[in-house]
Amino acid sequence: MAETDYDDNNVKIITTEVQSENPVLIEGFPGIGLVGNIASQQIIDELKMEYIGSIDSRHFPPIAVLYEGLINMPVRIYESTEHKMVMVVSDIPINPVVAYDISKALLTWAKSINAKEIVSLAGIATMSEENKVFGAATNMDMLERIKDKVELFQMGTISGISGSIMGECLVREMPAISLLGSTMSQNPDPRAAAVVIDVLNLLYEYGINTEGLIEQAEKIEVEMQRLAEDVRTTEQPTGARKEFPMYG
Amino acid sequence: MAETDYDDNNVKIITTEVQSENPVLIEGFPGIGLVGNIASQQIIDELKMEYIGSIDSRHFPPIAVLYEGLINMPVRIYESTEHKMVMVVSDIPINPVVAYDISKALLTWAKSINAKEIVSLAGIATMSEENKVFGAATNMDMLERIKDKVELFQMGTISGISGSIMGECLVREMPAISLLGSTMSQNPDPRAAAVVIDVLNLLYEYGINTEGLIEQAEKIEVEMQRLAEDVRTTEQPTGARKEFPMYG
Amino acid sequence: MAETDYDDNNVKIITTEVQSENPVLIEGFPGIGLVGNIASQQIIDELKMEYIGSIDSRHFPPIAVLYEGLINMPVRIYESTEHKMVMVVSDIPINPVVAYDISKALLTWAKSINAKEIVSLAGIATMSEENKVFGAATNMDMLERIKDKVELFQMGTISGISGSIMGECLVREMPAISLLGSTMSQNPDPRAAAVVIDVLNLLYEYGINTEGLIEQAEKIEVEMQRLAEDVRTTEQPTGARKEFPMYG
Amino acid sequence: MAETDYDDNNVKIITTEVQSENPVLIEGFPGIGLVGNIASQQIIDELKMEYIGSIDSRHFPPIAVLYEGLINMPVRIYESTEHKMVMVVSDIPINPVVAYDISKALLTWAKSINAKEIVSLAGIATMSEENKVFGAATNMDMLERIKDKVELFQMGTISGISGSIMGECLVREMPAISLLGSTMSQNPDPRAAAVVIDVLNLLYEYGINTEGLIEQAEKIEVEMQRLAEDVRTTEQPTGARKEFPMYG
Amino acid sequence: MAETDYDDNNVKIITTEVQSENPVLIEGFPGIGLVGNIASQQIIDELKMEYIGSIDSRHFPPIAVLYEGLINMPVRIYESTEHKMVMVVSDIPINPVVAYDISKALLTWAKSINAKEIVSLAGIATMSEENKVFGAATNMDMLERIKDKVELFQMGTISGISGSIMGECLVREMPAISLLGSTMSQNPDPRAAAVVIDVLNLLYEYGINTEGLIEQAEKIEVEMQRLAEDVRTTEQPTGARKEFPMYG
Repeated sequence: MAETDYDDNNVKIITTEVQSENPVLIEGFPGIGLVGNIASQQIIDELKMEYIGSIDSRHFPPIAVLYEGLINMPVRIYESTEHKMVMVVSDIPINPVVAYDISKALLTWAKSINAKEIVSLAGIATMSEENKVFGAATNMDMLERIKDKVELFQMGTISGISGSIMGECLVREMPAISLLGSTMSQNPDPRAAAVVIDVLNLLYEYGINTEGLIEQAEKIEVEMQRLAEDVRTTEQPTGARKEFPMYG
Repeated sequence: MAETDYDDNNVKIITTEVQSENPVLIEGFPGIGLVGNIASQQIIDELKMEYIGSIDSRHFPPIAVLYEGLINMPVRIYESTEHKMVMVVSDIPINPVVAYDISKALLTWAKSINAKEIVSLAGIATMSEENKVFGAATNMDMLERIKDKVELFQMGTISGISGSIMGECLVREMPAISLLGSTMSQNPDPRAAAVVIDVLNLLYEYGINTEGLIEQAEKIEVEMQRLAEDVRTTEQPTGARKEFPMYG
Repeated sequence: MAETDYDDNNVKIITTEVQSENPVLIEGFPGIGLVGNIASQQIIDELKMEYIGSIDSRHFPPIAVLYEGLINMPVRIYESTEHKMVMVVSDIPINPVVAYDISKALLTWAKSINAKEIVSLAGIATMSEENKVFGAATNMDMLERIKDKVELFQMGTISGISGSIMGECLVREMPAISLLGSTMSQNPDPRAAAVVIDVLNLLYEYGINTEGLIEQAEKIEVEMQRLAEDVRTTEQPTGARKEFPMYG
Repeated sequence: MAETDYDDNNVKIITTEVQSENPVLIEGFPGIGLVGNIASQQIIDELKMEYIGSIDSRHFPPIAVLYEGLINMPVRIYESTEHKMVMVVSDIPINPVVAYDISKALLTWAKSINAKEIVSLAGIATMSEENKVFGAATNMDMLERIKDKVELFQMGTISGISGSIMGECLVREMPAISLLGSTMSQNPDPRAAAVVIDVLNLLYEYGINTEGLIEQAEKIEVEMQRLAEDVRTTEQPTGARKEFPMYG
Repeated sequence: MAETDYDDNNVKIITTEVQSENPVLIEGFPGIGLVGNIASQQIIDELKMEYIGSIDSRHFPPIAVLYEGLINMPVRIYESTEHKMVMVVSDIPINPVVAYDISKALLTWAKSINAKEIVSLAGIATMSEENKVFGAATNMDMLERIKDKVELFQMGTISGISGSIMGECLVREMPAISLLGSTMSQNPDPRAAAVVIDVLNLLYEYGINTEGLIEQAEKIEVEMQRLAEDVRTTEQPTGARKEFPMYG
């Protein structure tokens, strides 16, 4: 099985060969509301995407992610050949000082697999309770495609790894859009993730079900509540919980 | 279309080919009063300058700048072939530790496009309410050209990226002048930017209108006021505002 | 005698030639409860393993470890040809920023000695008094082998050098398991180490006696008590104590 | 005109060709009392030395120094062919972490211009009001030359860039002396600079007038007083002052 | 005169040619009680050892050490051809982050001069008033030689540059011993240095007189007292003192 490798000593991307021609590349890193990685994980589960590899970096925290006894890398790459789509999902936030190297590496790798376009999923803080999706694009063609499906991001900044990837897409002329689910708090917000997926369904006809996400979200909110109480009663974090997936 | 590239692993300058022979190179980075970038953005808008590329660095904060749904790089390069002028404008302040590399890269690039001379636009803090423009030059010829149009900067220092660029111009024998609009506060001061543009009009006969800048400045002051009140009522920054351009 | 060397300027592994073909490689670094290195030292002593070398790094604290007048390196490698097993034990905790380089070096070295599989011994904080062993694996084969002997680690993260080594095993397709002895406190917990060894005995039929470990543990607890009192009466650490081995 | 260049990526020395054969190289960096650079600037002015170049480093603060509208580098090199002397003067203090690279570069450059010997001008804190000059040398010959003209520095340390240069002179067998003007405070002390120049006049018969220095010193003291009051009334530093030269 | 040089960009060792065949290499760096460098300086003085060079590093503080008007490097190397012994003495403490490079460089240099064995002189904090010497060795032969002359260091750690050098000796199979003079405080303790020299006399029959050291120690204690009072009355350190040698 052929591999696609990228290694510049700072960032290492190792995957099995990508099967899709000109795939759409979607990325979801944890930021405000964990919108990016919650949405991405839901897409991976619903589309039954196949694990094909991971991104590693000397600047990532040393951490392994456990799921049902199996060890996973914190930043993973999946593929759906049916939907000609590749997904990068991260369980760990990216330190701003590493964002430059990660986005450079990601674009170089995206070009090496002939990615058609890049979609960045993330959150954005607003003071409105309504769950909106703000959108932005690197060129007029992409802007045209999203303008009726999102609220255009008129003025402001996208910071962190999402902003860095968008800038790198612009410089290297990779068509890209950014979908930002509005959220009101720092807590995980699967509802913001759900509306981002709704827009993705409109754009690519993935037909991803988000009802499970809403239900799961409600469970997480209960769990968050319970954890907050745990923290108040002990300082030692516990390691093994079973009921719900972990975000971030 | 040919490109002009500079890449030393720390700083990357990528543009389409500069059309002007021996262009004047003007730079405006945000500093006190944001005089440099406010003046630069006004010049870009009024002279309808064409976007030709950007400067990127691993030492810049990871950020993308949004304007009407389109993604922009935070440090951009524009050209006016009519006025044989190239402009470097930045939305982000440059960390002092990066100034050395940026100014080295900028001078190398300036030489590669056969720039005739460099003009640095910036602010200077004074305690006088009057908006003056202080000027300095790297050699007697340049000093001669500005001495009747500015107040000569008799003694003191220019620090930050502007100072660094001027020093590099001196060492590499690139004729250069520094125009510093006096301002009394750390807030954006478009009036200081306007008087700097007035001097630029005297020197190069650009005929740039600054009335719009004054009006816009008044609106910004209102917006600043509103933002300050927002900050007092919430800790989450909002992302999507429509009314006014962003400085810095 | 031939040597096996690894040196990448950050990490240096120097040993005499490993005699075992396809050895199992076990590692025990100090973490919570010092479970990893207490268990490892006990295995080394009980199996009368032979010292074959050490790991050094410019990122380790400058320290020599004394035992009965003899100087030792803080991170040491032992071999038991009888049990076809190699052990890496550390007296010093590994700074997270070095974990990436150490685990990369360790895997490269493990491949160079044709290691068959890797077992990571560590601790995990729980709020239960019962001493359990949680287990995780890098693939289904290894998971199959441990699933009846440990409590599977359903969901969570392994951080620090242990997590980093497991991730590197996954990426480089080295079969690996992680055995985590549950402990309730930051203090040395030889009982948690003992149950980890029990699982190891089940997996590899080493027949390692852990009674001595329990007794020693009780002595350490007495010593810990005494030291805590010393700290309250003086700020100068003492250098020469005789009665008990040092952990970490 | 030929140039003498030194560039090791950390430190860059660029000058026009030095005309003097075997020049004496004098350096004055700002330290306690700014004795080194006040004395050096006075020598440059009185001997009408010619500007021949500058030292630049990525570790210097980004700063340009203004004087009568002209931009200067903060670390400058001058030559007096009449006195066969080259002077290095700095307006900025050298961060201790850079001193090693600067002194290495300076010695390499000094050897490349066949410098005969090096004289370091600096200050030293004492509790005596009398302005003395303490002296030290790298070998017995140099010690012999200064022993009747200074108070020998019996025991202690010279730290910072001056100490670093002296050590490098010793290692590379460049004859060198250190002249340290005693001062009681952190404020600029031109009187300490004046007595250092007196010793220099004895050693090299330069006949440099120091009366102007004393007068200027008195003016600076008045200005210091005024600045201290300014600081108490405003937090924004002012940029354009005319009356007095700037030290450091 | 031939030179022995070591230069790896981090550490530079420059000496004239070592005359002794297979010399014993003794090192004394300042640590607790300054035992290492006080003992070393006494040995240098009593054996009238010849200065042959120095160790320099970009990680050392920029400092020159003065003694009777002559400039010295802070880390110096001396030789006694009569006693076939080379001594490395330091006036400055070694930052832990540099210890790795220094000890690597020192061992490489020690091998280049065919050093027979290395002796490390240092202090160790105890709570006993009695001045003991604790000893440790890198192999059984060396342990055999010291076991009747010192108290064996049963269990614990040697940290800092001494520990780092001992570890490097072990890895590179250079026979080495560590002699640690017990001391009760952070202040200079020449009595601890004296008992260390007593052991050295037993081991190598140097016959070094330590009475002068005791007397000098008493003077230092008086001086320390006076300095402590100085510090209470002024914040400006004084530079020129005559009466006593400086330690560290």
